[in-house]
Amino acid sequence: MRYERIKMAHGSGGGLTLELIEEIFAPAFGMGELADAALLEDGSGRMAFTTDGHVVKPPFFPGGDIGRLAVAGTVNDLAVMGARPRYLTAAFIIEEGLAIGDLARIARAMRETADEAGVAIVAGDTKVVERGRGDGVFIATAGVGFVPEGRDVGSHRLVPGDVLLINGTLGDHGMAVLSRREGFELSLALESDVAPLNHLIEEVFAAVGDELHFMRDLTRGGLAAAANEMVRHGPFGVRIHENKVPLQEDVAQYAGMMGIDPLLVANEGKVLFAVTAGAAEEALAVLRRHPLGARAAAIGDLVRQPAGRVVVETPYGSRRLLEMPVEEQLPRIC
Amino acid sequence: MRYERIKMAHGSGGGLTLELIEEIFAPAFGMGELADAALLEDGSGRMAFTTDGHVVKPPFFPGGDIGRLAVAGTVNDLAVMGARPRYLTAAFIIEEGLAIGDLARIARAMRETADEAGVAIVAGDTKVVERGRGDGVFIATAGVGFVPEGRDVGSHRLVPGDVLLINGTLGDHGMAVLSRREGFELSLALESDVAPLNHLIEEVFAAVGDELHFMRDLTRGGLAAAANEMVRHGPFGVRIHENKVPLQEDVAQYAGMMGIDPLLVANEGKVLFAVTAGAAEEALAVLRRHPLGARAAAIGDLVRQPAGRVVVETPYGSRRLLEMPVEEQLPRIC
Repeated sequence: MRYERIKMAHGSGGGLTLELIEEIFAPAFGMGELADAALLEDGSGRMAFTTDGHVVKPPFFPGGDIGRLAVAGTVNDLAVMGARPRYLTAAFIIEEGLAIGDLARIARAMRETADEAGVAIVAGDTKVVERGRGDGVFIATAGVGFVPEGRDVGSHRLVPGDVLLINGTLGDHGMAVLSRREGFELSLALESDVAPLNHLIEEVFAAVGDELHFMRDLTRGGLAAAANEMVRHGPFGVRIHENKVPLQEDVAQYAGMMGIDPLLVANEGKVLFAVTAGAAEEALAVLRRHPLGARAAAIGDLVRQPAGRVVVETPYGSRRLLEMPVEEQLPRIC
Repeated sequence: MRYERIKMAHGSGGGLTLELIEEIFAPAFGMGELADAALLEDGSGRMAFTTDGHVVKPPFFPGGDIGRLAVAGTVNDLAVMGARPRYLTAAFIIEEGLAIGDLARIARAMRETADEAGVAIVAGDTKVVERGRGDGVFIATAGVGFVPEGRDVGSHRLVPGDVLLINGTLGDHGMAVLSRREGFELSLALESDVAPLNHLIEEVFAAVGDELHFMRDLTRGGLAAAANEMVRHGPFGVRIHENKVPLQEDVAQYAGMMGIDPLLVANEGKVLFAVTAGAAEEALAVLRRHPLGARAAAIGDLVRQPAGRVVVETPYGSRRLLEMPVEEQLPRIC
């Protein structure tokens, strides 16, 4: 371990989070890696099971709140495994003094988002900690879904030549939360993209079926973390064409002003898809017809060299490595 | 709602927690009550799904730690529904500055407890909050289990005449945590009872089967909360014989000194069983043969009057009402 005490970056979803998982949790829990979500082969079928803690600050931000974030995040974790999300639980850890009205508003947002996704919140728990020992409200959600017979997506199906698609602009969530935190939200038209993507994903399955090889939601660490995790154990790399990556103008501008690379920023309504070259056009058309994929784009592909790395080709013809983020760029974004 | 802001007592597991659930969460999530755990009828069988947040302070206490507590608590929530626990997830919300060594020790305790219970920890998540915005480590666990064909326990099966059993002494967990918090742990031989009870419960099922009507783990709010919740909607009440309730001598002494009623104190290794009068002796014998039930006892029964209330008969022949606890007696005990 690089440190003896927990740093903010251990929660960044980047290199230090991976180190924590690989050095502490995975050996303790007796598994190769402690996954975001697990696919469980049961007598009765394939069940996906996932959990996420949510500590976003502030809890209300342009385009959403911690309740919508918690439900959408868990739904999306299940959906990118190929599962159909069904049931959610929610554990609330609340700081003494939170306004009951705020809690009610968050609970309503959870229900609305659950309805949108077609899942049921079936069990919960509430704990309260003293003022100054928490921060408003933290929500840990867990979710269960079921993978339809014959469906198989995952990094084991990735092959060079696969085309990488995303369903829209990057960086919206992280920059919207930051703008609220920094008091810029009135002068910028930034809005979080937080949304449940399971219906969008089902439409891609319906259209291209087995040609869909892999999905990953672009949360903490953004595209940089997801793309690096996708290829770090594989005999191939990722090539991204920077000018193909859709960005909202205000996001690009604000990110530039803050010195932040949008490719490292968390999204809460964006998925990276890897599909065969033959199915890419059809998948892209399906995404673009969906309200949550209007600005979908093919942004790159899987390449044989350099293996294990993510290379960005800039509009000027140069190339740069996109590294796995290690330190925390935007803490408490989700 | 009695208050406009969250108080510590909203997390007590007593009356204010119920109010929060009934006024905020249940209406928002569209259900009669937001259960500790849900029983889900799926095409493939009956699945139980539960979640719990853990904020115990301090995280290491005589007889256990927050890791063992998190795993045992979730296992027990499933087991009292009649489910066989299978899979767990864990979401960590960590305060910046936590010693990595402490985290590793907690993770090992989780694994050991999971092994003891025969469950697998299959997915996780880590978030980090700034120093002063959390308190060491909070852990939210979720669990999935499956209910064997034909098994049916729950409050709908309770009938007057059912005998109430517990598998041992009450108050051990709460008083052990408090003794550590107050610096008394060296002068008192107090130890938490935290343990996974699923194997013990399976043995009761094996012995008395359908004669087992209902179970409830005696966590927050202790026997008082569990017994009141059991009968608050029913046309019958609970009678408890105070002199039958087993207490460790040091627990009774320390509770007396602190002015705390052990019947209101949280346990983490105790279950309340309701069985038919005909099966009570057999169930008690099974419990007493198990290491986690050596001091099991029949402590009372379900009575027709007073309906909806819990009455304690004292050794002196008098009777007192045991009310649902409303305010927080021992905060952050689990």
